[in-house]
Amino acid sequence: MAPWGERLAGVRGVLLDISGVLYDSGAGGGTAIAGSVEAVARLKGSRLKVRFCTNESQKSRAELVGQLRRLGFDISEGEVTAPAPAACQILKERGLRPYLLIHDGVRSEFDQIDTSNPNCVVIADAGESFSYQNMNNAFQVLMELENPVLISLGKGRYYKETSGLMLDVGPYMKALEYACGIKAEVVGKPSPEFFKSALQAIGVEAHQAVMIGDDIVGDVGGAQRCGMRALQVRTGKFRPSDEHHPEVKADGYVDNLAEAVDLLLQHTDK
Amino acid sequence: MAPWGERLAGVRGVLLDISGVLYDSGAGGGTAIAGSVEAVARLKGSRLKVRFCTNESQKSRAELVGQLRRLGFDISEGEVTAPAPAACQILKERGLRPYLLIHDGVRSEFDQIDTSNPNCVVIADAGESFSYQNMNNAFQVLMELENPVLISLGKGRYYKETSGLMLDVGPYMKALEYACGIKAEVVGKPSPEFFKSALQAIGVEAHQAVMIGDDIVGDVGGAQRCGMRALQVRTGKFRPSDEHHPEVKADGYVDNLAEAVDLLLQHTDK
Repeated sequence: MAPWGERLAGVRGVLLDISGVLYDSGAGGGTAIAGSVEAVARLKGSRLKVRFCTNESQKSRAELVGQLRRLGFDISEGEVTAPAPAACQILKERGLRPYLLIHDGVRSEFDQIDTSNPNCVVIADAGESFSYQNMNNAFQVLMELENPVLISLGKGRYYKETSGLMLDVGPYMKALEYACGIKAEVVGKPSPEFFKSALQAIGVEAHQAVMIGDDIVGDVGGAQRCGMRALQVRTGKFRPSDEHHPEVKADGYVDNLAEAVDLLLQHTDK
Repeated sequence: MAPWGERLAGVRGVLLDISGVLYDSGAGGGTAIAGSVEAVARLKGSRLKVRFCTNESQKSRAELVGQLRRLGFDISEGEVTAPAPAACQILKERGLRPYLLIHDGVRSEFDQIDTSNPNCVVIADAGESFSYQNMNNAFQVLMELENPVLISLGKGRYYKETSGLMLDVGPYMKALEYACGIKAEVVGKPSPEFFKSALQAIGVEAHQAVMIGDDIVGDVGGAQRCGMRALQVRTGKFRPSDEHHPEVKADGYVDNLAEAVDLLLQHTDK
């Protein structure tokens, strides 16, 4: 691989994944990943533009940010690009009334949305709410529509909690796709629109930006397809086999966010 | 289409799907489909060989047969080819110890199977047991195996209960496939081995047999790929769009089993 100086040349902005990079979620609010609190502070103290770009869809941004602040992170709601608000915009634009297959923690993001007489399904990381009954309700709504619309907040396969790996929304999205013979519209990473909206928020072009995430496909592959560079951290859901992924090769692998920030501050223009 | 006499020439044996053809399952044991009790009796009174070939994986054969007999059907356990016994044979042959993601109703079929320290997952139509917790358990078992083995009892998309369409095992199989990046081994229709074992049981060659089912893909397409003919009934999960399926064309569409049996008795050699 080329030296870091070359790989990071011209970087002006950084998109940070949250779960598995800043912290591991779990009971009692989860735990910060060692060095990440300081790393975020150093990054925000530098000339680099920073934006948090998450597929978190189990909590509202307010709840997520509150939790992170309690862990010591310097982060505010206005700095976070998350799929639920992006989905709400789409629902309003297209006059869609969703059946919400979501976690109660994110329901407040949909407060302004009409959910009567549903003409689409929105699926998010619903956790325990992925009961057979709720899945079957969503399935039945879709099967009764002439043009079934399924909107999925991300399509992650799994994430890591302090207690172990947990199924994310992606497998359940695939289940409904197969059951109904349809293809979901994904809002969130790796959708290019989603990355672009995060970049717009900090006024940085894709070729000047680097994504830092723990998901080799959703974070790294998705960002690269948008013309960004991408680093994978060896925290969160990272597995050693990711470094030999058949399709995606990160621009660099780092032990954690702290190492990524060390490299960025050392090798990008001051 | 060719006349029925041509389409049914040389038929010596009939494979009958159960759910959606004989009866619709549901609360209180479900209900027989009009004319099906008599149709089965007439078929069994003819020279045609008859075998029941089901993907039912929520109930043991004993329970299923008991339920059908209460509805008036002439059927015994020995006449039924079902996926759970076929899966048990595979588990024994390969020394596999499954984590069972199944409905309690079918658990007795696995009484003789060692389930300690699992080295594979068996997934069946688990109904309400498809909780997030159980799905996550299965996922975690698979993710800890070097060579994850997922055995799925059928891969049906949905079936029809008296209360409406219900998600079958297939969507949940797809969910685990996607989550783990693996491919399941399907035991049951449309697996060719499964159809062949049903044909062997009645000593009929594929080209002399017709499958009657309500599933255009699993029953009709699967049987045809084995060299059998196949009729789709307009009962159970049948939907009008099935008659214009992009990939599968049945050898005939009939309103129900009664009409299928009328045609068979009229047009096959006495």
